[in-house]
Amino acid sequence: MAGISVPPCDLPSADTETAKEGKYEYLDHTADVQIHSWGDTLSEAFEQAAVAMFGYMTEIDKVSPSFKETVTAEGDDILSLLYHFLDEWLFLFSAEPFFIPRYIKITDFDTENFKITSEGFGEVFDLSKHPQGTEVKAITYSNMQVFSESETHDVYVIIDI
Amino acid sequence: MAGISVPPCDLPSADTETAKEGKYEYLDHTADVQIHSWGDTLSEAFEQAAVAMFGYMTEIDKVSPSFKETVTAEGDDILSLLYHFLDEWLFLFSAEPFFIPRYIKITDFDTENFKITSEGFGEVFDLSKHPQGTEVKAITYSNMQVFSESETHDVYVIIDI
Repeated sequence: MAGISVPPCDLPSADTETAKEGKYEYLDHTADVQIHSWGDTLSEAFEQAAVAMFGYMTEIDKVSPSFKETVTAEGDDILSLLYHFLDEWLFLFSAEPFFIPRYIKITDFDTENFKITSEGFGEVFDLSKHPQGTEVKAITYSNMQVFSESETHDVYVIIDI
Repeated sequence: MAGISVPPCDLPSADTETAKEGKYEYLDHTADVQIHSWGDTLSEAFEQAAVAMFGYMTEIDKVSPSFKETVTAEGDDILSLLYHFLDEWLFLFSAEPFFIPRYIKITDFDTENFKITSEGFGEVFDLSKHPQGTEVKAITYSNMQVFSESETHDVYVIIDI
């Protein structure tokens, strides 16, 4: 893989954890990854960006679409709408009952008032079933891009991991 | 662990690798980590910074000190000396025969002319013996700091991973 190197599961790469017998420690770190998603519609490109975000957290095809959660989001423009859409889904994962969707469907995509209503079909995150991926810490506005033309619809978003 | 989240070993988190059936891909990413090392002497703090760098690549205590490699480095000042010292060791790991040291000893630490001669005791990197850690891509000058007082000697260096 040319891209993200995958640290082993058992390396003690923790912050401020002093290495055994070594006179050193690992302090701050930063990391981010850029997601590019697309679709036949801009709505689908948004849905795919959210699924891509969850795909970074686990193997998304191990998630069963057992029950439904609904997420609404609002923005002042298309970029902040994307930000809040992803952030609301991230929040749902971050708090009880730690819902992770298998797929996401936007049922109302209002690009005049910048409002989204969406449904996710998934289940409660369960480490015995869902391999632990990388924690997504935050959505960012950094270099965020939304392209929507008659035939192509693309989203670029950088997430902090 | 509060710090670096450890991705699982088997997640397909590669650059430009399109997810199965998904209309998304993971593009650029950046990541770095800050190493802090110290020692009874500045020379020891330098040695420990290099060991810390290799400690990020594998479990360093799985490395046997089987044979010796010698590395020399020069700089224009103490910071560039640290940079080149680490960079030369990184280079030795990056090219045939992929030498990884268990420990490093600076045999000549010339802070007048900013020259280092050092010896590493280790072996050829072998994935069957050494768990794969995170690839270290580069040493950086970003926020690099060297503190040397009578009693304390500290090095801070950020590496791109």
